Amino acid sequence: MNIGIDMMGGDFAPLEAVKGVDLYLRNSSFAGTISLIGDEDILSPLIRDFPVLKDKTRIVHAPETIGMHEHPTRAFREKPASSIARGFELLASATTDAFISAGNTGAMLVGAHYSLKPLPGIFRPTISTIIPKNNGSTGLLLDVGLNADCKPEHLNQFAELGSLYARYILGIENPRVALVNIGEEEEKGNLLAKATLPLLRDNAAINFIGNAEGRDVFIDKADVLVCDGFTGNVMLKMTESFYEITRAKGIEHEFLDRFNFEHHGGTPILGVSRPVIIGHGISHGLAFSNMLKLAEKMVSSNLMEVMKDSFATRD
Amino acid sequence: MNIGIDMMGGDFAPLEAVKGVDLYLRNSSFAGTISLIGDEDILSPLIRDFPVLKDKTRIVHAPETIGMHEHPTRAFREKPASSIARGFELLASATTDAFISAGNTGAMLVGAHYSLKPLPGIFRPTISTIIPKNNGSTGLLLDVGLNADCKPEHLNQFAELGSLYARYILGIENPRVALVNIGEEEEKGNLLAKATLPLLRDNAAINFIGNAEGRDVFIDKADVLVCDGFTGNVMLKMTESFYEITRAKGIEHEFLDRFNFEHHGGTPILGVSRPVIIGHGISHGLAFSNMLKLAEKMVSSNLMEVMKDSFATRD
Repeated sequence: MNIGIDMMGGDFAPLEAVKGVDLYLRNSSFAGTISLIGDEDILSPLIRDFPVLKDKTRIVHAPETIGMHEHPTRAFREKPASSIARGFELLASATTDAFISAGNTGAMLVGAHYSLKPLPGIFRPTISTIIPKNNGSTGLLLDVGLNADCKPEHLNQFAELGSLYARYILGIENPRVALVNIGEEEEKGNLLAKATLPLLRDNAAINFIGNAEGRDVFIDKADVLVCDGFTGNVMLKMTESFYEITRAKGIEHEFLDRFNFEHHGGTPILGVSRPVIIGHGISHGLAFSNMLKLAEKMVSSNLMEVMKDSFATRD
Repeated sequence: MNIGIDMMGGDFAPLEAVKGVDLYLRNSSFAGTISLIGDEDILSPLIRDFPVLKDKTRIVHAPETIGMHEHPTRAFREKPASSIARGFELLASATTDAFISAGNTGAMLVGAHYSLKPLPGIFRPTISTIIPKNNGSTGLLLDVGLNADCKPEHLNQFAELGSLYARYILGIENPRVALVNIGEEEEKGNLLAKATLPLLRDNAAINFIGNAEGRDVFIDKADVLVCDGFTGNVMLKMTESFYEITRAKGIEHEFLDRFNFEHHGGTPILGVSRPVIIGHGISHGLAFSNMLKLAEKMVSSNLMEVMKDSFATRD
């Protein structure tokens, strides 16, 4: 297994990325190679202080960097020697098995779009977030922003992709899927929700349990919550903000700690042919380490093939 | 001033409603009358224990009650002697100046729709919620569920109604209005947000400051946040749930306390001709007292007339 990681992406790169690789390797039995993608002149002296990196990493020189505020499409095209462009080049050519970056999110999405293919039959790739529940369990919410406008058939696919992710990565045997809505009753909702519900109900590939309201997000009603990317993005950012405010005010509790994104690392793009994980710009070592853990799990569980087979078996 | 209050609405009626009226009258210099609408046989003996109610209230007999789970339209039509139907009858005939209920929300909306008129020029009445900010200030979010599907011109009107509410009720001089969106940049959003932004920008009746993301909801970026009722309802219920979970876990902090809806009481229907306030089913005395306070403020500030004039001055 070879995991590619963009060492130049994120507000605290490359040092926190290096720390994350070090943390991961010291705490796992990882048997493969990690490709550290970035400027060799910067990385080489840096990793000398982290002896554990010597055996299991190799530097892939990428002298250019895409800044956090650069125009994604333009930057991706005009900087083929950037760490993000190199990362996708390695991934698309199967030199690496997964690619991680906490850099420019837009450029990551552009890279996935141009370098990788959606899985056959997938209308729209999607991104998700992990949701901590009040009873200690963990759920998944998707889409959280990749698809601002959705059609019912998109949400129906997100439900399947989310179910497979919940099963193979979160270890939930028969994930309960719910539709984010504004009431429990079947007839409730906006036009999109009303048109989506029958598709989900009739989808034999998922365990659909009905509607979930905003009040059900943090309780253990469903494992996978499906919505359009506009609603999901607002939900995600509200949740992050609530956590940040409680932190800033010194409100401490184990339940709140679980909202720290660094525990989960980053979000994978689901529905594309190869594992891609997008990290927060403010990622520290813990987040990078957990993204590596997630990448390893996605590769070893063969999740992309599972997803491909799931959609390929139908017309 | 005569404020009508449904004494039979809510999970803890009528006792908590009585306690709320008592609490309000003991702590205010209210000079008008409160019409206690409900079953006289139940209310008469009950209020004997609350001597302060003697002078400033009168009972309006309403022998029927609409249950929390009854079909709103059917119940409203088939129970003209219910406390909700009587309440709207009094309000529509100007016997009362405002109407409050913590009863069946659907029946309240049906009652407002059939008994009152939307203000001239208003496409859709709307409901809002109070948002506590991390710096101690207070904002408004609307629509929170009355209009699951919206057009840009609806959101533009919500922005104006919310601005006037923020100014006259929350006391914010020149309320900053923002559009709930998934990015700060003008070009971001779903189709609705993209089409709404230019309308808000060109609306001289509001102080539009641009987009606000989910992360801006609890910080003091804008005073009035505008969105469709699907998104707003999910945001509202997530917020309520977060508060309830922190309470259940014993996580205490002044910032979290401010999410207790009882401090604000209930939500007014904005865009109709007369003040109507809808309370939570689980309202206790404090919530009823604060709904009375809000009703008094809405009447004394002449908010409905102000709103009417604001829309009437344009074509």
